[in-house]
Amino acid sequence: MRPAPDGTPEGPPLLLDQHCHGVLRTPTDRAAFEALLTESDAPAAPGTTFFDTQLGFAVRRLCPPLLGLAPHCAPRDYLDRRAELGVREVGERLVRAAGIAEFLVDTGLPGDLTTPAELAALGGGTAREIVRLETLAERLADDAGTAPDAERFLTSVDSAIRTASATAAGFKSIAAYRHGLHLDPAEPTREESLRAATAWLTDRRPGTRVTEHTLLRRLIWSAARTGRPLQLHTGFGDPDLRLRHSDPLLLDDLIRALRPTGCTLVLLHGYPYHRAAGYLAHVHPHVYADVGLSLGHTGARARAVLAETLELTPFGKLLFSTDAYGLPELYVVGAHLFREALAALASDWVASGAWSRPDADRVTQLIGAENARRVYGPYP
Amino acid sequence: MRPAPDGTPEGPPLLLDQHCHGVLRTPTDRAAFEALLTESDAPAAPGTTFFDTQLGFAVRRLCPPLLGLAPHCAPRDYLDRRAELGVREVGERLVRAAGIAEFLVDTGLPGDLTTPAELAALGGGTAREIVRLETLAERLADDAGTAPDAERFLTSVDSAIRTASATAAGFKSIAAYRHGLHLDPAEPTREESLRAATAWLTDRRPGTRVTEHTLLRRLIWSAARTGRPLQLHTGFGDPDLRLRHSDPLLLDDLIRALRPTGCTLVLLHGYPYHRAAGYLAHVHPHVYADVGLSLGHTGARARAVLAETLELTPFGKLLFSTDAYGLPELYVVGAHLFREALAALASDWVASGAWSRPDADRVTQLIGAENARRVYGPYP
Amino acid sequence: MRPAPDGTPEGPPLLLDQHCHGVLRTPTDRAAFEALLTESDAPAAPGTTFFDTQLGFAVRRLCPPLLGLAPHCAPRDYLDRRAELGVREVGERLVRAAGIAEFLVDTGLPGDLTTPAELAALGGGTAREIVRLETLAERLADDAGTAPDAERFLTSVDSAIRTASATAAGFKSIAAYRHGLHLDPAEPTREESLRAATAWLTDRRPGTRVTEHTLLRRLIWSAARTGRPLQLHTGFGDPDLRLRHSDPLLLDDLIRALRPTGCTLVLLHGYPYHRAAGYLAHVHPHVYADVGLSLGHTGARARAVLAETLELTPFGKLLFSTDAYGLPELYVVGAHLFREALAALASDWVASGAWSRPDADRVTQLIGAENARRVYGPYP
Repeated sequence: MRPAPDGTPEGPPLLLDQHCHGVLRTPTDRAAFEALLTESDAPAAPGTTFFDTQLGFAVRRLCPPLLGLAPHCAPRDYLDRRAELGVREVGERLVRAAGIAEFLVDTGLPGDLTTPAELAALGGGTAREIVRLETLAERLADDAGTAPDAERFLTSVDSAIRTASATAAGFKSIAAYRHGLHLDPAEPTREESLRAATAWLTDRRPGTRVTEHTLLRRLIWSAARTGRPLQLHTGFGDPDLRLRHSDPLLLDDLIRALRPTGCTLVLLHGYPYHRAAGYLAHVHPHVYADVGLSLGHTGARARAVLAETLELTPFGKLLFSTDAYGLPELYVVGAHLFREALAALASDWVASGAWSRPDADRVTQLIGAENARRVYGPYP
Repeated sequence: MRPAPDGTPEGPPLLLDQHCHGVLRTPTDRAAFEALLTESDAPAAPGTTFFDTQLGFAVRRLCPPLLGLAPHCAPRDYLDRRAELGVREVGERLVRAAGIAEFLVDTGLPGDLTTPAELAALGGGTAREIVRLETLAERLADDAGTAPDAERFLTSVDSAIRTASATAAGFKSIAAYRHGLHLDPAEPTREESLRAATAWLTDRRPGTRVTEHTLLRRLIWSAARTGRPLQLHTGFGDPDLRLRHSDPLLLDDLIRALRPTGCTLVLLHGYPYHRAAGYLAHVHPHVYADVGLSLGHTGARARAVLAETLELTPFGKLLFSTDAYGLPELYVVGAHLFREALAALASDWVASGAWSRPDADRVTQLIGAENARRVYGPYP
Repeated sequence: MRPAPDGTPEGPPLLLDQHCHGVLRTPTDRAAFEALLTESDAPAAPGTTFFDTQLGFAVRRLCPPLLGLAPHCAPRDYLDRRAELGVREVGERLVRAAGIAEFLVDTGLPGDLTTPAELAALGGGTAREIVRLETLAERLADDAGTAPDAERFLTSVDSAIRTASATAAGFKSIAAYRHGLHLDPAEPTREESLRAATAWLTDRRPGTRVTEHTLLRRLIWSAARTGRPLQLHTGFGDPDLRLRHSDPLLLDDLIRALRPTGCTLVLLHGYPYHRAAGYLAHVHPHVYADVGLSLGHTGARARAVLAETLELTPFGKLLFSTDAYGLPELYVVGAHLFREALAALASDWVASGAWSRPDADRVTQLIGAENARRVYGPYP
């Protein structure tokens, strides 16, 4: 058992991070570092900095000591020390300090990122892949050349999804970003899919995104039919999405329609609709909720946000993740804030008599790793 | 004055539970017991149990001591002891321990449930009926035989509502479950009602539910015209409803339209839209809010949820209820968590100087019983 | 540096209130006083009083000592003392005690209210004007006589907005009240504006409000083109609005469309959508959030509401305001609760190590005054 970085009460000794991304292989300057601290796609407003956020303060609290500096040192000193140590050393120190045993890595993001195996090596754990459906479809369309055939394209997508399901831990859809979650719950017919694929492929330029709702639904249904767990982005994220179209409650009818497939649905993030995500996990047997982005970005408030998530979500249905991307700092922050928040809530509730200590310890293990092990199953 | 079951600071000595249901007259096995701990309509997901929820933990905290066991004992031990004591003994011990003086009982739910009088006898209090409008209409349609006449049906509904208003404490609508709260605010005309009734009654099989919005509105208007209080389900509940269609803000225009009738509207539950319900109670003189389901199901978080409800809801306009149904445990949990949460909030706010102690005591009495006595009036 | 009225931990020594209104010049009886304690447009429900609210309790806590009475004295005693001292003396004592150095005053509300200069004199500070766009348009329409010309009217509106921009601190739109925030994001064409203006002006009676969405958008775009900051009402307010149409997320596309103008947008109030407002301030460089109404009306809960606002809102993008209107008590309550809530949060977060003390002090200054100074700029 390893102690938490700064001696706070330990949560689960080793976590399973059910949703994360690689870290950058190349050095980052201050602008690039700040850009990875925010969901904004623009520089900070004049006179402000993204270091002045709950996430920025959490990074400055937790990461400098891991690089030999005092907590809350100035951003410039931290970035200087980071540059001095180099990407590899910083990555190892930070990812390893997060105490994560298993990483489920969404490989669908662009950038010069570590592979799942490289990430696992940095963190001293193991890794499995989460296949992002939209990226899979876009790569196949890019490969299809200049006169793609819609029928052949759809067949290749289904086939690639089936193949991936043999090794991947699960799938992920970012329909929230591409269209919004107000999706027709019915499975698209073959004709509808062909029509939509033809329209999208005709005169398509490489890299063009899937934003058409029939194709997005087709990807979701195709993945669901494999029986592997399917992660769905819900709640806040970068301004590619409209937050009001990312309310997980918009998925209610699709959730019902997908139930007969036997697919497990994992609602990522949720904030500020995390109570709604908890409700869906409460009433639908195949729906799970996630902590994700919500804890790192709310920093000093992580405990309050986690507490709200724990109102309706059954304790066997909440999954830990960091959603870390690009910066190894985000692993430290996501894992530490989760451990600390859950330990503090459990401690309060045990002290008041609301929970027993054995139950608190058991629930801590469930959320930190065991629920995810049950959902994603053993290595194939 | 009776002490709270486990010696926590007392709230109001005796409560008025303005919205509850009967308890089962027959023994329950583990599956049936668990099913009554959740709003889900399906068994718990594989590897999980509905005991692992805030409500499950609250039941295991508060109820075992009332049956001679240690708090937080294993579910199996609790259920064994429950079976050993028998339904009647368990019902009496638990309902009585809730410290409720008056029960307003919605009698519209199915199952082998205690009548209001039987429930009152268990709890050592008194009971009045809340008439569920949809059940009233469905029973009249069932009784109307094979060739029902729409005009006669509507007349019989109006007449039954008027008759009920002479003795019932109030009415309740579950339009949120049957259609959603996005209802046309206008009172249906006679022609619209006849058309809708004809469509519904033609070839109707016994037990068929009212889901058509014109008929649901007709029931609401008919009840409102009696001047008795009308309870409206809002917020979370079982998966018959779509949570986003249960947002009480969807009622805003109907609330305005109903104001001239003089009818008092009570928005039940509300969660996770309880702040919105508080807003409506704040700006509309004839609107009240309720705590209901929200406290029992959020358990260790009841205090936080009640605090949010107390942001905008005027203190003269919040009503206590348990929404207990089937299990006498739900009376214990609902009443205890309410007393404890309100006492803790009041204590904190008095300690910080935000409230005075006499005000805190007065508000405690208002919410626990006096607001409901003012709204529902004396026994007819 | 001045101490806070009752010796609580100091926040920023002097605040910049970026959104407020004048106080009444004439005495108020109990009914008028209560009406200014609520956003309701109706008297309190029978048997209840608007003093029994978080705002009422906060007024009774903080204001009696400033008039020589005990905290939490009876409303009648407080109102008697108030009448005895007179409007001028009460206004000076209370507004001055709020510790506000600069007032940005929305002058678009009716009533016998102090001017910005008079308010500044009461408070011992300085004042600048915020021009309410709808009031500006309605006054110009009133002045245009019986046969107004739409083209001339639109020109006069643009011209008045340009003129105002030379001296006013900024503009404000209450489109949330007049139509709701579900507005077409596109700038209206000249033809659309002319058509809408003609329809509105034809047979218009003096005092008729602008409620047509094309004209509301035209006012917003015209103000945005001046480059001065534009405040937008969002979230709760009096029942002129529909709360679900005041969700700031409805503004998402309009926010994007306005970005090229260089105009800064300030989302007022936000509650209960304050987390959503924080999200918009997080992802859009030209968007800021405000505390406004949310703290005064939630009283003992101000700290919790401010904490939620501080989850996603970058610390350089949150602005203090009281939204005080009519009663000088609202300045005391708004300023005191803000200082106290922020000091308590900062103190907790410093104690837990989440924030450093120098950062906490810096953020306190930012939110209390410096962010607003940066946004609104120096006096012209």
